[in-house]
Amino acid sequence: MKNTISGIAASQGIAIAKAYHLVHPDLTIEKKEVIEVEAEIARLDQAIQESVKELTAIKEHTLKELGPDKAAIFDAHLLVANDPELIQPIKDKVKHEKLNPEFALREVADLFINMFENMDNEYMKERAADIRDVTKRVLAHLLGVSIPNPSLVTEDVIIVAEDLTPSDTAQLNRQFVKGFTTDIGGRTSHSAIMARSMEIPAVVGTKSVTKETKNGDVIIIDGLDGNVIVNPTEEILLQYKEKQQSYQKQKDEWAKLKEEKTLSSDGHHVELAANIGTPKDVKGVLENGGEGIGLYRTEFLYMGRDQLPTEEEQFEAYKTVLENMGDKPVVVRTLDIGGDKELPYLHLPKEMNPFLGFRAIRLCLEQQDIFRTQLRALLRASVYGNLKIMFPMIATLDEFRQAKTILLEEKDQLVAGGTKVSDSIEIGMMVEIPSSAIIADQFAKEVDFFSIGTNDLIQYTMAADRMNEQVSYLYQPYHPAILRLVNMVIEAAHKEGKWAGMCGEMAGDPIAIPLLLGLGLDEFSMSATSILPARSQLKGLSKEEISKHKHTILSMSTSEEVMAFVNEHFMK
Amino acid sequence: MKNTISGIAASQGIAIAKAYHLVHPDLTIEKKEVIEVEAEIARLDQAIQESVKELTAIKEHTLKELGPDKAAIFDAHLLVANDPELIQPIKDKVKHEKLNPEFALREVADLFINMFENMDNEYMKERAADIRDVTKRVLAHLLGVSIPNPSLVTEDVIIVAEDLTPSDTAQLNRQFVKGFTTDIGGRTSHSAIMARSMEIPAVVGTKSVTKETKNGDVIIIDGLDGNVIVNPTEEILLQYKEKQQSYQKQKDEWAKLKEEKTLSSDGHHVELAANIGTPKDVKGVLENGGEGIGLYRTEFLYMGRDQLPTEEEQFEAYKTVLENMGDKPVVVRTLDIGGDKELPYLHLPKEMNPFLGFRAIRLCLEQQDIFRTQLRALLRASVYGNLKIMFPMIATLDEFRQAKTILLEEKDQLVAGGTKVSDSIEIGMMVEIPSSAIIADQFAKEVDFFSIGTNDLIQYTMAADRMNEQVSYLYQPYHPAILRLVNMVIEAAHKEGKWAGMCGEMAGDPIAIPLLLGLGLDEFSMSATSILPARSQLKGLSKEEISKHKHTILSMSTSEEVMAFVNEHFMK
Repeated sequence: MKNTISGIAASQGIAIAKAYHLVHPDLTIEKKEVIEVEAEIARLDQAIQESVKELTAIKEHTLKELGPDKAAIFDAHLLVANDPELIQPIKDKVKHEKLNPEFALREVADLFINMFENMDNEYMKERAADIRDVTKRVLAHLLGVSIPNPSLVTEDVIIVAEDLTPSDTAQLNRQFVKGFTTDIGGRTSHSAIMARSMEIPAVVGTKSVTKETKNGDVIIIDGLDGNVIVNPTEEILLQYKEKQQSYQKQKDEWAKLKEEKTLSSDGHHVELAANIGTPKDVKGVLENGGEGIGLYRTEFLYMGRDQLPTEEEQFEAYKTVLENMGDKPVVVRTLDIGGDKELPYLHLPKEMNPFLGFRAIRLCLEQQDIFRTQLRALLRASVYGNLKIMFPMIATLDEFRQAKTILLEEKDQLVAGGTKVSDSIEIGMMVEIPSSAIIADQFAKEVDFFSIGTNDLIQYTMAADRMNEQVSYLYQPYHPAILRLVNMVIEAAHKEGKWAGMCGEMAGDPIAIPLLLGLGLDEFSMSATSILPARSQLKGLSKEEISKHKHTILSMSTSEEVMAFVNEHFMK
Repeated sequence: MKNTISGIAASQGIAIAKAYHLVHPDLTIEKKEVIEVEAEIARLDQAIQESVKELTAIKEHTLKELGPDKAAIFDAHLLVANDPELIQPIKDKVKHEKLNPEFALREVADLFINMFENMDNEYMKERAADIRDVTKRVLAHLLGVSIPNPSLVTEDVIIVAEDLTPSDTAQLNRQFVKGFTTDIGGRTSHSAIMARSMEIPAVVGTKSVTKETKNGDVIIIDGLDGNVIVNPTEEILLQYKEKQQSYQKQKDEWAKLKEEKTLSSDGHHVELAANIGTPKDVKGVLENGGEGIGLYRTEFLYMGRDQLPTEEEQFEAYKTVLENMGDKPVVVRTLDIGGDKELPYLHLPKEMNPFLGFRAIRLCLEQQDIFRTQLRALLRASVYGNLKIMFPMIATLDEFRQAKTILLEEKDQLVAGGTKVSDSIEIGMMVEIPSSAIIADQFAKEVDFFSIGTNDLIQYTMAADRMNEQVSYLYQPYHPAILRLVNMVIEAAHKEGKWAGMCGEMAGDPIAIPLLLGLGLDEFSMSATSILPARSQLKGLSKEEISKHKHTILSMSTSEEVMAFVNEHFMK
């Protein structure tokens, strides 16, 4: 085993704690014929009993730590594990069909899951999920593998996983989780975004951390340099404790910048804004000194439910965000669904290449009822703050014109009906498709602003799925082609007196920040926790000085050249 | 039913004949319990007998029309249909398990298919395919639906289908097929490419032609304007017969241009080359006056087989093409596999977005043994003609440099081993990823030539899967963003004294041709059958005149504006 594993620094900071492996065991089973039927049934009973014991422990722990609401789910699990209507048919199958209990369990459980899932009743649908969870646990016991119980953790840990799914992170007892490290993923993966929002360090994409560590190893996560150190010596440990302290001091310094305006060393102001997903995130934006919201991803309102949100629900969410941000700008992106973000209740056909498919504005222009409902909610909320609206995935001017026309139609109708709507809503667009960056000069005549979405822009420009590990080496934010596109967009905006922002991961990236300042970007929208470090970095950079090198940088031919130049000239 | 259905003109010409519906019937079946067991078995026997009768007719017809080789396959089918080892177990299942014959048939057939498919023997694997075909036929009779037997056609027909798969077209009796029309697909779909290679008219993407026509209707395919006319009146029929004649006259005119050099009206020469897939296609290139091969898609060598082609097999194919083309240039594209073109024997992981995935040069740089074998075969063949090599899907300069280094390594090794290799092989690249078009000026210093692959370039630049009907409106070859990229590539090439070609569908498109001439494209590579019409069109166009409008065209903001301008100024 190696002592130092390197990966991608996905969330800043240093964490030192024991490794906790959150690894999903292999639960594949085979159909077998059994002979000793009674012994097999006893084995099944044993597995059920162990599961009940575990579930009881988790329930009690949850009750103590998180209260009766959260514990109720485990009561439901216990009911399932003790339910003779589920257990008896499994035993019958073992007995009469001479099936191995693993297979019998899976068959019976699938039957119930199917049945419950097809019921038109939310309560019953949740039962399907309960059966699935309990079956998994019993199966693990039958197979002699262990499934992790992260909610039982009672000491500081660093979560080690292949990757973290949203449901994994939902289970974590955040009090004890000090850091994340994963085999796969990049700066834009769920684990990375979660870590930044939890303000804990993370190193992702290590390829092998689950193999190079074991449960209980002491590990250090260096989220500044992207390293994981396993079972460090006393000397190394001391070294990292010092690094941790100096990072804390750095953070304290940053905190002092909270109320400051963002100014470069030569006095140029840029706006540092935050990307948010829900009204709850506004608190973090204000605490981290955000000057606005540069991207409000409205799709979270539509996810994790079984029907579209009503106009009223949306109105309340938008109003809350606008009111809490006061007169600070809030850029709302209209629904960006499709691609990797599915809404099961829309019943969209499966696509061969969802990232190049029917998503975002393409869907909204066709399913206009969805789009118009969202626009009405936004327009009604507009009087509660400083709202700007932008459309995602615009590829042609036609699409922008159509979307804007629909927005203005809804506005006219509302006003005609006596509803108050702000008269100063700026209407802009995401620039995340190469075509719109390339003819940004044409768009600039018709939009109020641009917001460059680098996550998508990079993947389309390089023709490389950013979620696909095998081509992740092509996800190159500093590639000269990307910088040229960004430059085209900013120049086009300024020529028409409009502003240009950026709301992809790149906007908060310390290597990119000097480049973007030099190219004249007006607004940088990033994870809230990146704002203060970015403000601090920008204080030390001269826009005029960097601009002098603009031509040189844009004439480079590889990302490596650009990175080397930035490191040599603009990094302390 | 409508009388005129419009679609996409995918292959030129006018055809008039009876409609032949090549529609695959719905063969979904349900598991049922049967009571009248004997009656059910009789029903099965009846279906088998009808299938045998049909197969015998097809066999005899094939024997007469195509000879004993092609008829042998139906002998094999007849053996299956009469095989008691297959039939008896089905009857047993009906009898003892009281299963409906449809379900029993499917179950038994699947068992045999699985068994044969898993054998490590080519002959046995083919038996699996036979059983699948025969089962389908018997099932159709059981279900009372008819499956089309296109090989039995004995009069002129127009094939009407939802879409045509490669296996559908393989079954067609080409002598009688006068045209294609389909519900789905575009200019780059299999049906469209087949129609052009068969030189018969086609109208694809009609959305509804299978519903608007029935078997035996007289239909007209207007592959010039993209219309299908159903049961025309005498008057309309006459009108189209005239149109057909005048198109034939036009073709005769074109044929006279076969030996001519391609010159614009102001004496500017461009090269008109062809895209090919196999050595067999060379004949069509020469017959259509091709000045070279602008794209030899080598992946067909790798497809439809169960292991990689050897160096020797590849060498023979490349040598044949080079020899037959004499001193005319042959641009060979190295393996472009992945994306929509899978090679099952490489066992590549399924990808979420294959078009943005691990394909072409990305795969070749990692699986270098495959790449090096192909390069050696090419290098050895180079002495037999005028070879140029290009790499597909280049996104970064690093990739081009790596690929070129590997090519030169193999060359050095061959030469050191005493093998003759041409010293004048040009090494170029496809420009089909936006990033490489955007920094074409940097690439131009290191490549010998560019070939713009518009099929992919358009889909990445617009972020729209060209196979996905729901976003097909975004596949816009005349979008100003595309034209700007094309212009960047041509200007970059010329600045360094290199040449720029194009090998996507756009190069043969009459609307695009004036634009490309005006932008200074040096080589146009297209379907062989488009060469003479293109040469004729180019004769009537002045490069200098069009170039004057270059700035105006590149400053337009939508495809519609561009199209209107071309139609007004450059089309007769």
